[in-house]
Amino acid sequence: MKAAVLHNENDLRIEEVNKPQHGPDQVLIEVAWAGICGSDLAVYQYGLGENIHPLTGRKAPLTLGHEFAGTIVATGENVDHFQVGDHVTVEPLIFCGTCLACNSGYYNQCQMVGFIGLNTDGGFAQYVVVDASKLHKLPDNVSLEEGALVEPTAVSFYAVRESKLKTGDTAIIYGAGPIGLLTLICVKAAGAAKIIVVDISEERLQKAQQLGATMVLRGDQDDLIPTILTATNGGADVVYDCAGAQQTINNALYTTKLGAQIMIIATFKKPIEIDVNLVMFKALHITSTLAYRNVFPTVIDLIAAGQLDVKPVITHKIAIDDLVEEGFEKLLHDKSQAKILVTPTSNH
Amino acid sequence: MKAAVLHNENDLRIEEVNKPQHGPDQVLIEVAWAGICGSDLAVYQYGLGENIHPLTGRKAPLTLGHEFAGTIVATGENVDHFQVGDHVTVEPLIFCGTCLACNSGYYNQCQMVGFIGLNTDGGFAQYVVVDASKLHKLPDNVSLEEGALVEPTAVSFYAVRESKLKTGDTAIIYGAGPIGLLTLICVKAAGAAKIIVVDISEERLQKAQQLGATMVLRGDQDDLIPTILTATNGGADVVYDCAGAQQTINNALYTTKLGAQIMIIATFKKPIEIDVNLVMFKALHITSTLAYRNVFPTVIDLIAAGQLDVKPVITHKIAIDDLVEEGFEKLLHDKSQAKILVTPTSNH
Repeated sequence: MKAAVLHNENDLRIEEVNKPQHGPDQVLIEVAWAGICGSDLAVYQYGLGENIHPLTGRKAPLTLGHEFAGTIVATGENVDHFQVGDHVTVEPLIFCGTCLACNSGYYNQCQMVGFIGLNTDGGFAQYVVVDASKLHKLPDNVSLEEGALVEPTAVSFYAVRESKLKTGDTAIIYGAGPIGLLTLICVKAAGAAKIIVVDISEERLQKAQQLGATMVLRGDQDDLIPTILTATNGGADVVYDCAGAQQTINNALYTTKLGAQIMIIATFKKPIEIDVNLVMFKALHITSTLAYRNVFPTVIDLIAAGQLDVKPVITHKIAIDDLVEEGFEKLLHDKSQAKILVTPTSNH
Repeated sequence: MKAAVLHNENDLRIEEVNKPQHGPDQVLIEVAWAGICGSDLAVYQYGLGENIHPLTGRKAPLTLGHEFAGTIVATGENVDHFQVGDHVTVEPLIFCGTCLACNSGYYNQCQMVGFIGLNTDGGFAQYVVVDASKLHKLPDNVSLEEGALVEPTAVSFYAVRESKLKTGDTAIIYGAGPIGLLTLICVKAAGAAKIIVVDISEERLQKAQQLGATMVLRGDQDDLIPTILTATNGGADVVYDCAGAQQTINNALYTTKLGAQIMIIATFKKPIEIDVNLVMFKALHITSTLAYRNVFPTVIDLIAAGQLDVKPVITHKIAIDDLVEEGFEKLLHDKSQAKILVTPTSNH
């Protein structure tokens, strides 16, 4: 079968590999759609490292792809709750189940946390084997394309749920990439009154406006901070950093109101500098979340109910043969792209 | 009358000034005891600046002292709730009462916030005039010495109340100066199970142990972090930074458990660096409080009830004539000192 295997940095190959065999607690999924994530781009550029993952025993080369949905084509003998033909999406977190974090229900913060598609073979392939415990069934009115969006939506949805946002609040989202746009959708569903989205790309801001931002602003405009402070009557209740830069943290510190929260969703490549006086004088709260826990079923329900209309974040759909040029390279160089979905099968 | 007037940096003079006159909404207080605060040391070293405070119309020279208690010796004609002979302490915050912060009840975060004793004449004097609205009466079983400790206790108490600490939690306090020690007392009163205090001074750690710390550790010992992680089974629920250094923030990030909070009480002279990955992987919460609001009556009640036994933080008592050498200079150079109280009258 065809799979997109990362061998080294900048060496992602679409190649023929053996179709995987499922065990008694696993299922075999025929992948319909898989999304490309920022972390896929990061390992494409910088590699997966030389360490063998302690839970999977794997390192590169392996098949990428952790945002995917498909159809079950075979089930192991111990699998009760799923059957051949079911449409499913996969919660790709791998965790030990026994550490303090896991025991506290925070499996997303397991000390050995890993991902299907980063620490073992993932969804950029015609078939993938997954433990049944990672599956979430898609109802009839959630498409397989939407199914592939459940994972990144869960990232944003969990961050919004863990934030202090309440209905009627003002939110600012710095960064209108896929996670920023999905955060916008989740913040809107949570009843935010004013939602300001800031980015340096006009195309992304247009998309944000189309998705319900009440105000969009160029991050590089000179009067950004006074404009926001005027529009929000003194700053936002919650600021979501979906960009991950020193400048967005600075802007966040200046555009929050008293007692507000800065929720960091983006990853940062290096330490940030914070003026603690700003935190003290405004009694700000700074926090961050990693991935998600226990929200896939809710996200699927909300997509099914139309409360999270996530499909507009898809800007491009490609076949697996074009994954490198039309997928990874396009995302690295064309900032008008948000989510690109890949199909490894010819019948989609 | 005698007063300690700051003229410029390093120019604090004990001099004769006119006894102040009270207006119709004010009282005249004969000061019994006044404490020296870290912010007094800061303005002693660096000056009060050249700006006239917008609410008081004052700048240096002025009389310092914002932690004080005394006896009312005269009342204005509109003052109903206080009378001559009352023992009182003073809540020294000056605020506009009309800005967004004030209107939200956060008068401590007023955009023009100031202090009696920093932005108008304070309590390092035989007499001080104060608006009756700033007064809190001391019950018979709270001494005037304890009355002078209400203000710094309120700083720690408010920070503990605003923190996530719950009974049975593990707390770490970095820095065992006066605010660190008062935070220890407040954390203990709040029902913390384990309280670890970290400082580089043996004398301060001894004091912390005497005040109820369950473990005291030298901040400069090599195995500080593993020792704490072992003692706390993975880190503290809440870390209070009462030191204000890059190193204590680093230690705080490494000695918090999953989902824990870092409450910054100290002021920082320059921006700090934070590794956001640590915040993300542990879902930490970083916040800070400024001064206090609406807690003086509760602090006085708890001191009266014996639940906050604050007197042991007093390490030295001096007369106003010795304020510079035995007070300010001693605090700058002798780290075994915690709170030094000054009496401007000879009958104490």
